[in-house]
Amino acid sequence: MSESNCRHVFEVIERCSETGARRGRLTTPHGVIDTPVFMPVGTQGSVKTISSEELEGLGYRMILGNTYHLHLRPGEQRIRKLGGLHRFMNWSHGILTDSGGFQVFSLRDITRITEEGVAFRSYLDGRKIDLTPERAVEIQLDLGSDIVMAFDECIPYPAEESYVREATRRSFRWTERSSKAFRAQVDDGRLFFGIIQGGMIPHLRDESMAAVHGLEPDGLAIGGLSVGEPKSMFRDILAHTAPQLDPSRPRYLMGVGTPLDIIEAVIAGVDMFDCVIPTRLGRHAHVYTWERKLNLVNARFKEDLNPIDVTCRCSTCEGYSRAYLHHLFRAGEPLGPRLASYHNLSHFQDLIVRIRAGISEGNLLSLAAAIRNVTLEKL
Amino acid sequence: MSESNCRHVFEVIERCSETGARRGRLTTPHGVIDTPVFMPVGTQGSVKTISSEELEGLGYRMILGNTYHLHLRPGEQRIRKLGGLHRFMNWSHGILTDSGGFQVFSLRDITRITEEGVAFRSYLDGRKIDLTPERAVEIQLDLGSDIVMAFDECIPYPAEESYVREATRRSFRWTERSSKAFRAQVDDGRLFFGIIQGGMIPHLRDESMAAVHGLEPDGLAIGGLSVGEPKSMFRDILAHTAPQLDPSRPRYLMGVGTPLDIIEAVIAGVDMFDCVIPTRLGRHAHVYTWERKLNLVNARFKEDLNPIDVTCRCSTCEGYSRAYLHHLFRAGEPLGPRLASYHNLSHFQDLIVRIRAGISEGNLLSLAAAIRNVTLEKL
Repeated sequence: MSESNCRHVFEVIERCSETGARRGRLTTPHGVIDTPVFMPVGTQGSVKTISSEELEGLGYRMILGNTYHLHLRPGEQRIRKLGGLHRFMNWSHGILTDSGGFQVFSLRDITRITEEGVAFRSYLDGRKIDLTPERAVEIQLDLGSDIVMAFDECIPYPAEESYVREATRRSFRWTERSSKAFRAQVDDGRLFFGIIQGGMIPHLRDESMAAVHGLEPDGLAIGGLSVGEPKSMFRDILAHTAPQLDPSRPRYLMGVGTPLDIIEAVIAGVDMFDCVIPTRLGRHAHVYTWERKLNLVNARFKEDLNPIDVTCRCSTCEGYSRAYLHHLFRAGEPLGPRLASYHNLSHFQDLIVRIRAGISEGNLLSLAAAIRNVTLEKL
Repeated sequence: MSESNCRHVFEVIERCSETGARRGRLTTPHGVIDTPVFMPVGTQGSVKTISSEELEGLGYRMILGNTYHLHLRPGEQRIRKLGGLHRFMNWSHGILTDSGGFQVFSLRDITRITEEGVAFRSYLDGRKIDLTPERAVEIQLDLGSDIVMAFDECIPYPAEESYVREATRRSFRWTERSSKAFRAQVDDGRLFFGIIQGGMIPHLRDESMAAVHGLEPDGLAIGGLSVGEPKSMFRDILAHTAPQLDPSRPRYLMGVGTPLDIIEAVIAGVDMFDCVIPTRLGRHAHVYTWERKLNLVNARFKEDLNPIDVTCRCSTCEGYSRAYLHHLFRAGEPLGPRLASYHNLSHFQDLIVRIRAGISEGNLLSLAAAIRNVTLEKL
């Protein structure tokens, strides 16, 4: 490992006695992040309905921004001119930017993939957007990202093995070019993460891991999971991959997930997560408790004076009943999605705090069992 | 004036040396309200996008709820069962409820007016809703309102004098029935306000005033202004009516208005206001400053790093630039309407605070001139 890559950006400070879980500290230009960490998603420079002060108040210290969406609107040049994404959205803590690779997956029908990169049609005005590894890194640097992700292809499921092999290898070549582009420009403490692909095929995951490790990135991400595969396959690939990742680097499971997904991945040794679930479900009246997930639109809540979760100390639960939230959603009042999103973000941060305590106190498996119980029996 | 109506619910504590303006204190079951006061509108039990904690933090101590909408959804019986509107929406300060009279005006094409009351078709499911003075008072009492408004008809403009006369007299008979219904049930410090109608016809305003005064209500409201009439007519009727209202009672100009409307009415002697302007305009990217009104969607704000108003200390202005808000509105992010509504509500509360100081310090006319300057020259 070369000296320049041996920056001590990540430190494991505690290991779980029973599982692969660990607690760590990740140093970024915008502060030291405790791991395991969950990152709310601010696709277009805003975590939907929630202010930056609220995110900070909830305890979040790292959020995710989206290269593709911010490139389209308002554009990375404008954000750069305005002082970067942190200042733009009034957020003084960490920002990780995805690279656009997930859009290669989710906007598959309007993309064209070549060795050079990907051509999209803008969903805003139809104009052609070319995204290459070099361009994706440049955009992320212009945004002012603390953690720059390699440009890759999130491989769909199901896919033929031949396609997965080809895409995994191309993704690696893109990751290599991303790494080169990043190192050519950055010497200021910002981090670069490589992404492991390989679809649902263990030996292709192995091949991808070996190659990405060779680039000595600051962190290692697992991409291409939670893309529609059966849950057992998700677990198998996670169990196969996570423990093989260099334990001295932070491990990031992209786009995941539910509370159960998160704790299972922590047990497998993963440190970082991002997902739209808390805000997307919240906007649609679905909220989490430690006993069950509720749909607040359901008529059984119309006279329920309990808060969403009696054990929760968030301002939604301190001030408002399920009956009131039910009314807000039924009446189409915008305060409903806001209060529900806020609660879900509070719940996910509580989950992370409990997971960290569970690692320290050696009761992570019983916490996981409790969460499994919620999800399987009472949903 | 009978002893029972001589409750000292309102006290004028200071009079402007140059104008008809005054400062006062209005005692309600949920606290003493300083006047002049502006009441944000929570039509469906929520001031759109804004939490009750935020309203309180901005300095608001009285808000308005809507009888017609809350009757339709979730229903006053449910709200009563759940502990009343204050508890339902987590608001511990004053609530004034309109009576549904404004809906007689705004939903005119789906109503049928008789001596008994008004029949509406519900806009939700088409079912027939009968609203009478007695029913409107009962609904407001079930909601737990601090200030119950008489049921009346907000007369449209333009209208034939014969119609205005007929409607004004019917409105008075309804007000009388409302008063009777209120007094038959209430002996707990809640207040009843009568409403002056009379359209744009001074002698009918006089007739209405004389009649409503005879009922000795706790407060006197001016209804049927700001319904589409020319601004000069609005000013003439206001100047004709306000000074004739019993000065020992609070005077409330319903549904008004812009900052200029408000200060002009304060100068004419009005104490209380409500309007959807701060939130409705905010939702559509229109925001107030002390120099001009801005449309944040305008391209000239796309790289403007200033806050909405450099002199404003609200959290929107402390944290976010016009450029960011411009982006949020362009991108359809729900945080945009929320931050803009919050700023406008902060601006209106600032306006009220400045008006109160202007009354005390004797510079209300120069404040009015400054506001007139904004509105006429720079809009």
